[in-house]
Amino acid sequence: MRMAGRSAPATDKATDKAAADRAKAAADRAKAAKSRKIESVAAPERLVVAKPPARPDYPRYRVDPGKPIRTADIDPDESEGYQGKADVTEQLALHRNRIGDLQTRLYAEHDRALLIVLQAMDTGGKDGTIKGVFRGVNPQGCQVYSFKVPSADELAHDFLWRYHNRAPQAGMITIFNRSHYEDVLIVRVKNLVPEEEWRQRYASINEFERMLTINDITVIKFFLHISRDEQKRRLESRLANPDKRWKFSSGDLGERLLWDDYMAAFEEAINTCSTDHAPWYLVPANKKWYRNLVIARTIADTMEAMNPQYPPAEEGLEKITVPD
Amino acid sequence: MRMAGRSAPATDKATDKAAADRAKAAADRAKAAKSRKIESVAAPERLVVAKPPARPDYPRYRVDPGKPIRTADIDPDESEGYQGKADVTEQLALHRNRIGDLQTRLYAEHDRALLIVLQAMDTGGKDGTIKGVFRGVNPQGCQVYSFKVPSADELAHDFLWRYHNRAPQAGMITIFNRSHYEDVLIVRVKNLVPEEEWRQRYASINEFERMLTINDITVIKFFLHISRDEQKRRLESRLANPDKRWKFSSGDLGERLLWDDYMAAFEEAINTCSTDHAPWYLVPANKKWYRNLVIARTIADTMEAMNPQYPPAEEGLEKITVPD
Repeated sequence: MRMAGRSAPATDKATDKAAADRAKAAADRAKAAKSRKIESVAAPERLVVAKPPARPDYPRYRVDPGKPIRTADIDPDESEGYQGKADVTEQLALHRNRIGDLQTRLYAEHDRALLIVLQAMDTGGKDGTIKGVFRGVNPQGCQVYSFKVPSADELAHDFLWRYHNRAPQAGMITIFNRSHYEDVLIVRVKNLVPEEEWRQRYASINEFERMLTINDITVIKFFLHISRDEQKRRLESRLANPDKRWKFSSGDLGERLLWDDYMAAFEEAINTCSTDHAPWYLVPANKKWYRNLVIARTIADTMEAMNPQYPPAEEGLEKITVPD
Repeated sequence: MRMAGRSAPATDKATDKAAADRAKAAADRAKAAKSRKIESVAAPERLVVAKPPARPDYPRYRVDPGKPIRTADIDPDESEGYQGKADVTEQLALHRNRIGDLQTRLYAEHDRALLIVLQAMDTGGKDGTIKGVFRGVNPQGCQVYSFKVPSADELAHDFLWRYHNRAPQAGMITIFNRSHYEDVLIVRVKNLVPEEEWRQRYASINEFERMLTINDITVIKFFLHISRDEQKRRLESRLANPDKRWKFSSGDLGERLLWDDYMAAFEEAINTCSTDHAPWYLVPANKKWYRNLVIARTIADTMEAMNPQYPPAEEGLEKITVPD
């Protein structure tokens, strides 16, 4: 991540020599990043981005630009032939380990970052995904922001302000639990701003995500796709289970009645904003274990394609001895 | 956590009824918290705080107010008789699971919070502690802030500003990797501000932490105590190991020469700022596995004493059915 006019932050006790070495290393990385990433700033569609490697052996659920999807065409019960959680335990552990190892390198590299957006209907599994996929990650390199009803201060700013404020620092995995997409979802369905206003937002969102990408932040977005019946089962389970009942909000029922409006809003957001540089993945999510598998492996593959590296050591270390 | 003039944030779709129920529950909790925590605002030493239960079966390393310690009196090689990592693997897993379970409840309660401060000499193990103790925690409820050299903007404010800005929200475990104590440590040792100025800071820090405590933030602080020899071994290991060499900064050697000055600064900070409401723990840290055990069980015990609870369910849920 090239910071405006300065090198990566030095530690408290960096000497001038060390700072100069690091500035040089940062400049080298910036140069490499530049030749790697940007063919033309004027032509965002030609951005060269770190696409996860194509894996012939599993479905990707990636929404390709120019090939609009309909949620109804994707079966939320899909599970690639796996019958149950036990079938994927080993694979999930493998992908979580891959994420953990790659995150250690990303954090050390202190150059690029990963932004993961999670969106879903109520009970769709955003919280469960974070717990199920990221529980093994070092929290020092992972930040989660849950966006709720905007505060008066946030509402007094442009709609992207509060999200931009939480954009990842170099080295981090940042997870948006809900995101700037709320401003073309609930805002649209509940008529919170006029259509001519929210319709402008797709272009603003695409440009925001492109700007993040050319500043070395990889952006991937997941829609957790559950069926209307599955939501009913999950809400009923919250009502029936004393340990889950505190999660139940009768307000959720009102949202449920707007299901079709939400699906239309999701479809337009996904189809308009799935780009080469910031793709949407539409993940079958009725089966929680399958959802976690798909998301964990997609993130691991994406990070593998980023290929983060330990930074170079300071020059001249071979001459150094540690005093008593 | 009683927020100024308002109840806990409602979700996007909370009805007025649900909001009223939650406001009532929050008020009840605030009332309970009030009778639980504050005997007298004017007398901070009489704050009733959630002390971890006394465990006769293991050493606590807690620094009691009025009983000043010297780092030289605590053996950094201490390990309670355990011989190696394998002896404590099971216990460490147990305490990590306790932390994970209690964190789930703390996050759900959305009322109180935990602030953990980590301080140490270079190579003392702050990063390793975070990874070793918190890797199993849901990152949604855990935030880590690593404080580096202050920015120009931060330096233009009072010394507490940037730390207060990162104080935990309700429901969170927040970890300060370095903290406001840097402003009476490196600042003192390197003469970055005059003595009459940093000497005032102990009182400011104690009052800051008391204020956090009466606002339902439990504060615990760990000094990871390594020996000068052990630091030498760790620095040499970074130099010798190509995978660790990037961590080595020749600036660390200059700090090492100030070891005794740092110890004096740590001792005064710990002795002056270990209070009933925000205790310091001086943890033997030459053995990384023992350090992790001590810190994990201290945190688990502290959270157990906090005893976080799932919030009450909305009233009237028994009459609700979920529509198709």
